[in-house]
Amino acid sequence: MSYRVSDAVIRRLPGYYRHLRELEEAGVRQISSAQLGMRLKTTASQVRQDIACFGRFGQPGAGYGVTDLKRHIGAILGLDREHRMVIIGAGNIGRAVANYPTFKKNGFITAAVFDANPEEVGRTVAGLPVRHFNELETFLDMEKIDIGILSLPSGDAQQALELLTGKGVLAIWNFAPVDLKCDEDAVVVNVHLSESLQILSYKMHAAART
Amino acid sequence: MSYRVSDAVIRRLPGYYRHLRELEEAGVRQISSAQLGMRLKTTASQVRQDIACFGRFGQPGAGYGVTDLKRHIGAILGLDREHRMVIIGAGNIGRAVANYPTFKKNGFITAAVFDANPEEVGRTVAGLPVRHFNELETFLDMEKIDIGILSLPSGDAQQALELLTGKGVLAIWNFAPVDLKCDEDAVVVNVHLSESLQILSYKMHAAART
Repeated sequence: MSYRVSDAVIRRLPGYYRHLRELEEAGVRQISSAQLGMRLKTTASQVRQDIACFGRFGQPGAGYGVTDLKRHIGAILGLDREHRMVIIGAGNIGRAVANYPTFKKNGFITAAVFDANPEEVGRTVAGLPVRHFNELETFLDMEKIDIGILSLPSGDAQQALELLTGKGVLAIWNFAPVDLKCDEDAVVVNVHLSESLQILSYKMHAAART
Repeated sequence: MSYRVSDAVIRRLPGYYRHLRELEEAGVRQISSAQLGMRLKTTASQVRQDIACFGRFGQPGAGYGVTDLKRHIGAILGLDREHRMVIIGAGNIGRAVANYPTFKKNGFITAAVFDANPEEVGRTVAGLPVRHFNELETFLDMEKIDIGILSLPSGDAQQALELLTGKGVLAIWNFAPVDLKCDEDAVVVNVHLSESLQILSYKMHAAART
């Protein structure tokens, strides 16, 4: 099954999943598009449109079954299977990602952590020994890895991406503040912390001006 | 001066700033909208429109002065002044943010780190002693703080936001995976790591389906 879905809808999907999980945990079994919209600060019509991108769900009048819809959106997000990840860069960001509590719960498993600095090698991060970056290629020959996480200096990120994608790791989660180039069959999602903080700064000053 | 600028333009501004800084460091003095667009993977016309949102810049034919435009976009982003921040939550994310190298260079200074866990209190994070969350209110009475960073469990985030905004901290950078409610005079920018990873997962599977 293939979808053509806008980036705006994709960006909202994890929010749907989170709210549906919270509703399920609270024992809610059915929810209307209006109620779901209120939680997500959007309209009933937007909710219906978003969900309709992925097939037919819900009954007019009865709304959506919370567990069914959560499971379906989870599957769209790939949360119904396990993903194995490697973290490249055992600095502060790499360690924070390795220790982040909910990734494992959602099936995102850190298989190994690498660093180019010999002083980091052998240290333990989230229960894993840090390996030398030189071992990454051999590691990727032996293990099936889905996601490469780049938490290393900007200047080293492109080379690491090329090594990963060359070995078939087609999803790159990039924390380095640099725009990476990659083949069309690979996907990159960036978390640019400096840029996010600058946007906050912009909005704060814009709010003060009005 | 007040602007009405779309979110899409705002999201691109830090990228402009980063590329202009790199160009300045490389000794480039003038750049055309087409060249800037190539670096930012967009069109010359988009660049001209984006920049025109903030006033008149550049000369037809000569392009933009790199240093001038960088300084101007920096000022729009508030990078021409200092911002003082408090970090609430000294866990992995809080420590990674406290130690992030480029914030200070851009004038974002961490003034203090707080945690509700007595075992964290007194530990050193990025050269600062972790203070108990109970001291936050008194601290905010004495110090001018611009930005509150929430790197604490979801269940505690709303209360921390209310304490901060009640004391005049009107910019909240939220890493807790929860939607926060706040008054209209405050601004919240979220970094939802789990959601970003889910979007990567979605895109990887969508790419595999096509």
